[in-house]
Amino acid sequence: MKILSKADLESLDKYHRINLINTLSGIKSASLIGTSDTEGMTNLSIFNSTCHIGANPGSLGFIMRPISVERHTYANIKSTNHYTMNIVAQGFYTQAHQTSAKYDKLTSEFDACDLTEEYIHGFKAPFVKEANIKIGLVFIEEHLIYNGTILMVGEIEVIAIEEKGINESGHVDHNILNTAGVSGLDTYYTVKELSRLPFARP
Amino acid sequence: MKILSKADLESLDKYHRINLINTLSGIKSASLIGTSDTEGMTNLSIFNSTCHIGANPGSLGFIMRPISVERHTYANIKSTNHYTMNIVAQGFYTQAHQTSAKYDKLTSEFDACDLTEEYIHGFKAPFVKEANIKIGLVFIEEHLIYNGTILMVGEIEVIAIEEKGINESGHVDHNILNTAGVSGLDTYYTVKELSRLPFARP
Repeated sequence: MKILSKADLESLDKYHRINLINTLSGIKSASLIGTSDTEGMTNLSIFNSTCHIGANPGSLGFIMRPISVERHTYANIKSTNHYTMNIVAQGFYTQAHQTSAKYDKLTSEFDACDLTEEYIHGFKAPFVKEANIKIGLVFIEEHLIYNGTILMVGEIEVIAIEEKGINESGHVDHNILNTAGVSGLDTYYTVKELSRLPFARP
Repeated sequence: MKILSKADLESLDKYHRINLINTLSGIKSASLIGTSDTEGMTNLSIFNSTCHIGANPGSLGFIMRPISVERHTYANIKSTNHYTMNIVAQGFYTQAHQTSAKYDKLTSEFDACDLTEEYIHGFKAPFVKEANIKIGLVFIEEHLIYNGTILMVGEIEVIAIEEKGINESGHVDHNILNTAGVSGLDTYYTVKELSRLPFARP
């Protein structure tokens, strides 16, 4: 085993450290967060930090980088209260990744990255037509973390999902939906179900 | 597409809703969090909510369920300030899952679930010998979320990782390390690298 202390980590080349720390904790889901400003200008950005907050009411969180620079996703969520999470699948992960480029405020990543805006059930923020799992959320609260990042928490208002992707027990089948995984900011993975284990008892 | 409004979600069978909401947002990494109490009694518990908080200093977060019942992991972190995250790999995911059973305070999941305690570099909390990515963290802060869940944030003090699992750029290779993914609380996945994409520019 290679052992790295905090001092060892600090002495690493900056990009080596970033890559290591970003990819260390395993595979994450990649989500495209769709928003629009109060004028209807849309924005789309990829995040790898979606986490489950609760099932009743359904709520999800994600981590926003520090707002020391302009963050269109943050500004749009704060001004409209609505946003969408669209789970990245293998069929459009390269376009999804391209949304991480720094486009100016007047460019919608939907256009620039060849993804299609979709509106569902009157929900105010744009979904990604190419996604087969789409979640519309209402902003609930934010928590400022000590390093300037922010936990954003929202409640699920609407879900759109391919029918074939939900099984009888309610589980989403990520095999059938070809869901992608991501490690860090750049390495995409395919996933394949290994096993569903029963509820564990002592 | 199947479309479910908030009212539709509320009217679902409880377990169907839990399974759907838990698995909706894609694949997550599974981590075993290792702690001990002030008497040295160890505890190990599986979490699927690890998220990246920052790379310098390296910090990670995870979501703790409401502490309306006894939570040994939470109590131990608060009393000792130290904990470990051990990334679940395909070789021991069934033992890892078994740590989700409700064992009493006097039973260590290491013993009950056939996993091996390991101590590295004088770090005060127990690591999992079977893991090939192990992270020692110091507790920094907690954020109480509106539904009673808690974001726990820690800073990385030490990392132990299989040498073959880090490449020249610092990226961890989850193919080589046979890292597992998880969806919800029960469905485990294998992962396979699809592609590493270059830094995106407009």
